Amino acid sequence: MEIIKNGNICTPAGFVSSATVADIKGNGKGKLDITLLFSDEPCNAAGVFTTNLVQAAPVTFCKELLAAGGQFAGVLVSSGNANACTGRQGIEACRNITAEFARALALPDDGMLLFASTGVIGNQLPQHKLINAVPFLCDNLDDDAGTEFAKAIMTTDTVHKELAVLVDTDEGCFVVAGAAKGAGMIDPAMATLLAFITTDAGADTDTLQAAIKKGCDASFNSLTVDGDMSTNDTLLILANGMSGVDVNKGKSRDKFNTAVEFVCRELAKMIAKDGEGATKFVTVKVNGAKNNNEAHMCAGKIARSPLVKTMFAGSDPNWGRLMSTAGSSGASFDPEAVSIWFNDLHYVKNGQIIDTALEKAAREIMLKDEYTITVDLSAGHGAAEYYTCDMTKEYIAINADYRS
Amino acid sequence: MEIIKNGNICTPAGFVSSATVADIKGNGKGKLDITLLFSDEPCNAAGVFTTNLVQAAPVTFCKELLAAGGQFAGVLVSSGNANACTGRQGIEACRNITAEFARALALPDDGMLLFASTGVIGNQLPQHKLINAVPFLCDNLDDDAGTEFAKAIMTTDTVHKELAVLVDTDEGCFVVAGAAKGAGMIDPAMATLLAFITTDAGADTDTLQAAIKKGCDASFNSLTVDGDMSTNDTLLILANGMSGVDVNKGKSRDKFNTAVEFVCRELAKMIAKDGEGATKFVTVKVNGAKNNNEAHMCAGKIARSPLVKTMFAGSDPNWGRLMSTAGSSGASFDPEAVSIWFNDLHYVKNGQIIDTALEKAAREIMLKDEYTITVDLSAGHGAAEYYTCDMTKEYIAINADYRS
Repeated sequence: MEIIKNGNICTPAGFVSSATVADIKGNGKGKLDITLLFSDEPCNAAGVFTTNLVQAAPVTFCKELLAAGGQFAGVLVSSGNANACTGRQGIEACRNITAEFARALALPDDGMLLFASTGVIGNQLPQHKLINAVPFLCDNLDDDAGTEFAKAIMTTDTVHKELAVLVDTDEGCFVVAGAAKGAGMIDPAMATLLAFITTDAGADTDTLQAAIKKGCDASFNSLTVDGDMSTNDTLLILANGMSGVDVNKGKSRDKFNTAVEFVCRELAKMIAKDGEGATKFVTVKVNGAKNNNEAHMCAGKIARSPLVKTMFAGSDPNWGRLMSTAGSSGASFDPEAVSIWFNDLHYVKNGQIIDTALEKAAREIMLKDEYTITVDLSAGHGAAEYYTCDMTKEYIAINADYRS
Repeated sequence: MEIIKNGNICTPAGFVSSATVADIKGNGKGKLDITLLFSDEPCNAAGVFTTNLVQAAPVTFCKELLAAGGQFAGVLVSSGNANACTGRQGIEACRNITAEFARALALPDDGMLLFASTGVIGNQLPQHKLINAVPFLCDNLDDDAGTEFAKAIMTTDTVHKELAVLVDTDEGCFVVAGAAKGAGMIDPAMATLLAFITTDAGADTDTLQAAIKKGCDASFNSLTVDGDMSTNDTLLILANGMSGVDVNKGKSRDKFNTAVEFVCRELAKMIAKDGEGATKFVTVKVNGAKNNNEAHMCAGKIARSPLVKTMFAGSDPNWGRLMSTAGSSGASFDPEAVSIWFNDLHYVKNGQIIDTALEKAAREIMLKDEYTITVDLSAGHGAAEYYTCDMTKEYIAINADYRS
């Protein structure tokens, strides 16, 4: 598997896209806010969605389409309005808009287009603005427009996030690509996560569903946003089989799963690095938990903790915060058996700092752009990893210097 | 029951205190950081403590003393060092220091002094500094020094928090008083909560334990800090019976419980109002939940959500955030049956805004210093209330204007 230079969502064979400005938010800022991803050949598809009880209309819409089975021609994505808390009218809007696109694209079935949205909750989607974009988007589909897709789905993101990898098998090569939008770690604007994976591998729906479930757990589900779960979180995968490589079994399937997980993980890291105000990317590893579930709980609690995130910003190796946060995570362990490492520096042993003289070396590590904190709970063999960033600015002015 | 003007922890008969500067943190800033609360007559006592798996030495120390039973002479409180993650040495320090005080106070038993600490985790307590304070603290006990007690326990608090109420019964009057320290809603420095209640009512240990358990649930457990649970959270109550009023049963007991709950609640509100950077105090009520537990979960999730707290700061009646946060709280309800009020303004009905023209009136309410958000889930009869504040400064610069 290798990363393809300048790879994007349209790098796999047969995928094209287009994007334009529909001014959905109505602020006249001219931001790309509607984009169409289309495949020359019909795709199998699968999705993972928010578990929030309040689900946006496009989430309900996609879940119903995927449950009904069949093949898909592509995905429409709009930003600026979440189409959430909009009742039946919201679902109708999804149907109306995708039907207009299906007509313009001469699709045999209205239900061949998926739809994802991100933005403000609680306003009805300005349908006419999206429908006005139909001719332009359908006439300008291009395999060079993958990056425009990644840009059009952005909201508070400062950089677009995309990636493609080439996978070599005995049967030939296939590509897995992805684009995502996130939100800063300390950005509670609307931490909607949208991620789209395309591939020219030949994969049936079950293969796709298993691959993104696994990929999502190891990436987006291990990424801290702000503890709020969006109404719109959506991860979709589309496979058009145009590479001619079947990945439904054996080694090819393993390679496919690995590639999907890799793409998800890299996109998740890009999201963490784009945390608003973030200056550091930190991986939190928890080993030695009673089981993987407790490891995940503990790593997540540490990665989300404002106490810990401001400590990252202040480059203050205040290990007591790590101990305290682990202790409140719900994981079971003996505090006096805990070890903590900052990268390779063994800093805490038996629940206490090994030597206060190590603080200087720990601080040196924390001054780096990227580092890893490893907490060993000595309670079993459970392990998990989380991605996070520091919490900066005034939020830390008071806190980072707490020990001075 | 009436609030006593300038009432403090020493207002109940027989309570005296003293405070001084021990420079425990070692920064030479001259802040009062050690204080002794003492009762002329021995007290019954009870406590509620952090549920963090990692518990500070003074928490373990107090729990052991209270479990052993007997009567207490008072409480020693130090700030600047949490004495947490300090192993056996930490517990030994508690024993040594309280023993020195017991000797100076000529107490019949070393175990008559409780001890609470707040501050940085992971450093051994500088015992000699606390022991050096023994003569001054023991020689200067005064019933006029209650406010100094409240000041000495502060860390990042900007104002001290204290209160006393007079309760009239058929048997005579008694006083319930309290002092507390907290931390800002958006202050992850160390959200240790310490609260101390004194009373001259005659109450046995069971009466005290029941009263503070109930008082704590309705106050400190309904107060959002930063989602981190401290290693040191401590709520203690001491009753010396000097009023001559027995509150162990009947109407007097009811009045006593009400007074304790009132004092706890007022202290919790003072803590919420002192949130760093906070400009607004918001009460979040959830009604119509399946049960009280789900109501508490839902109100807590809303009150803690950065999404919601930045919305408070921006005075933006973005009700979709309330819907989304409720939806991710774990409470079960039908999103299309939800009603939301801003004070008395019915704003959302059947999960949607009643009229977008109401936004202006909702914004007017949000511009006030204090207001109440009520969410009715229409799923049952569970109800709960939470206290919170807005999240201000740069943290919101990006977010409060999200809809503009």
